[in-house]
Amino acid sequence: MHFQAIYKPQTSLNTFTPTSTGSGFLAYQGSCSPADGRREMSSERQAEICSLLQNHGYRHRGFGHPSVTLTWSLALAGGGGISCVLQDGEVFEKAGVNVSVVSGFLSEEAARQMRSRGKSLKAKDGKLPFCAMGVSSVIHPKNPHVPTMHFNYRYFEIEEADGTKQWWFGGGTDLTPTYLNEEDAVHFHKTLKEACDKHDLKLYPKYKKWCDDYFYIKHRGERRGIGGIFFDDVDSPSKEEVFQFVKSCAKAVVPCYIPIVKKHCHDSFTPEEKLWQQLRRGRYVEFNLVYDRGTKFGLLTPGSRIESILMSLPLTARWEYMHNPPESSKEAEMLEVLRNPKDWVH
Amino acid sequence: MHFQAIYKPQTSLNTFTPTSTGSGFLAYQGSCSPADGRREMSSERQAEICSLLQNHGYRHRGFGHPSVTLTWSLALAGGGGISCVLQDGEVFEKAGVNVSVVSGFLSEEAARQMRSRGKSLKAKDGKLPFCAMGVSSVIHPKNPHVPTMHFNYRYFEIEEADGTKQWWFGGGTDLTPTYLNEEDAVHFHKTLKEACDKHDLKLYPKYKKWCDDYFYIKHRGERRGIGGIFFDDVDSPSKEEVFQFVKSCAKAVVPCYIPIVKKHCHDSFTPEEKLWQQLRRGRYVEFNLVYDRGTKFGLLTPGSRIESILMSLPLTARWEYMHNPPESSKEAEMLEVLRNPKDWVH
Repeated sequence: MHFQAIYKPQTSLNTFTPTSTGSGFLAYQGSCSPADGRREMSSERQAEICSLLQNHGYRHRGFGHPSVTLTWSLALAGGGGISCVLQDGEVFEKAGVNVSVVSGFLSEEAARQMRSRGKSLKAKDGKLPFCAMGVSSVIHPKNPHVPTMHFNYRYFEIEEADGTKQWWFGGGTDLTPTYLNEEDAVHFHKTLKEACDKHDLKLYPKYKKWCDDYFYIKHRGERRGIGGIFFDDVDSPSKEEVFQFVKSCAKAVVPCYIPIVKKHCHDSFTPEEKLWQQLRRGRYVEFNLVYDRGTKFGLLTPGSRIESILMSLPLTARWEYMHNPPESSKEAEMLEVLRNPKDWVH
Repeated sequence: MHFQAIYKPQTSLNTFTPTSTGSGFLAYQGSCSPADGRREMSSERQAEICSLLQNHGYRHRGFGHPSVTLTWSLALAGGGGISCVLQDGEVFEKAGVNVSVVSGFLSEEAARQMRSRGKSLKAKDGKLPFCAMGVSSVIHPKNPHVPTMHFNYRYFEIEEADGTKQWWFGGGTDLTPTYLNEEDAVHFHKTLKEACDKHDLKLYPKYKKWCDDYFYIKHRGERRGIGGIFFDDVDSPSKEEVFQFVKSCAKAVVPCYIPIVKKHCHDSFTPEEKLWQQLRRGRYVEFNLVYDRGTKFGLLTPGSRIESILMSLPLTARWEYMHNPPESSKEAEMLEVLRNPKDWVH
């Protein structure tokens, strides 16, 4: 079987600590074989992010509900993968990093969705074997002045009827603030732009726009956040060059986000600001469950690990009927940018 | 234009009180013309439910957040309709009743979904004019010992290329408790069964099973609640007979639910029970955004009124990574029934 993926954790899950370097704790065997570097990137990034999260979020102060305790959970996923989730920490309400490899046959619905993106997928006996691997993370802070951050970088491979393999990379990094802070928006986008510019000056403007288009909550007429970069189906100029680009993007995650966390995690906030954050978290849930490609793919794939897929959902969210912030309020200023995305760097 | 629907509120929205009887406050004109009784049923039911909600939920005690005040909102929907929402009352966290008429052309995606249910829809110049009208309600109480209740009854009409009209009724009433109470479950199902049995003894068992199958959160392997009745695409024996059946179901809503509310709305509860309720509300959101036919249809229909469609979402919800209730707990007992639905009446 061509697409079987086996995970061999080389240290016991019980002794794994998120502060260890990622290299070597995860071994991958199988013939869905992109450069080895890809899994290294995934596991290194995961260890780096987990370590940072732990350093910033380990003090539990029981916000929200006394029975909820701080938990770092590690789980070997059914499809092959490791999820690392921090819940109800002092700085982060919920933060997860997930490395996964899934393989099997595309569901009809998943194939239909890919064809609708322009792929010609010729099935063999009605079946399309696939393999996907990636790293993803969503970080929902407690303080409404610290934005939510999401990134995901993934590699996808499909074997067609004649044995040829289609492959592509996809992913991106994006920011979802509760309140707009222009300085933070510029820092975030500038860091991503620098990562892109090392490879091709055309990439940042193209992927910035793609991000604004992709994270669009159509039924609300709003973007989920203030964007970042997003791309999918990228299969040129060469596998190696795309991989180097993806590595640069993944390496930019920490410098584009952590300074913003440090800057605002002790900002004071009002109950009204917390409430607005919870309403925005509701929109986050709407986007992820209704539109997100990765979530939809996961929900459609038999045997996929649902707790890892839905790790991206916030700890808490809120929906009020007909909530409309007053004109000229900070909340209205945020909405304006979600409705009409801005260019933050040129 | 065959499917234009016009609402003429005969009393001003400002002077409308939910305790008034519904008859006459809403007039409907147009040629999507099922028996007049249909809209009467809708508006009468709405007024009845609104009045009950108000009597039970009008005292505001600021639970959750001091800035949230009790609001009864009425809005004339874009597509034609009236939404009536109670938020943060003493008994009900969020409760809405919605009467609506939408018409226009089916989106391609909506037509595809209907065809996948076995309908042959021949389009005229690529267009399928439709008209839909219905009443729906979701009631999320505060107390975790009072279950959430949902009902929806709707009439759908599509005009095909040769001018023939396809019509059908759909709907149902279902209960979503946080904790299982067998006596309540029996009362709820028994009341629905009696309403069905007046028309045909085969209906309750068939629609009870359909309900368990429909409200299935596939990615969780759980039903949303303990069921009730559900049906769709019902177009026989005759329009009049189906309509009479639907009326009986709608009339059963109050007697099947309100006694349960009265019985438990003063039950004491622990913070842990409230937390479990919030996690179950998260599952409610998952079902509604990922699977619910009405919600999906609404999100796909251009110009539909999003606040009315998403009125069904709870005020607050919660997602914890890998939450598993201890064996033999009350929470595990609830899950067991959601995983393996029971017959409550025979």
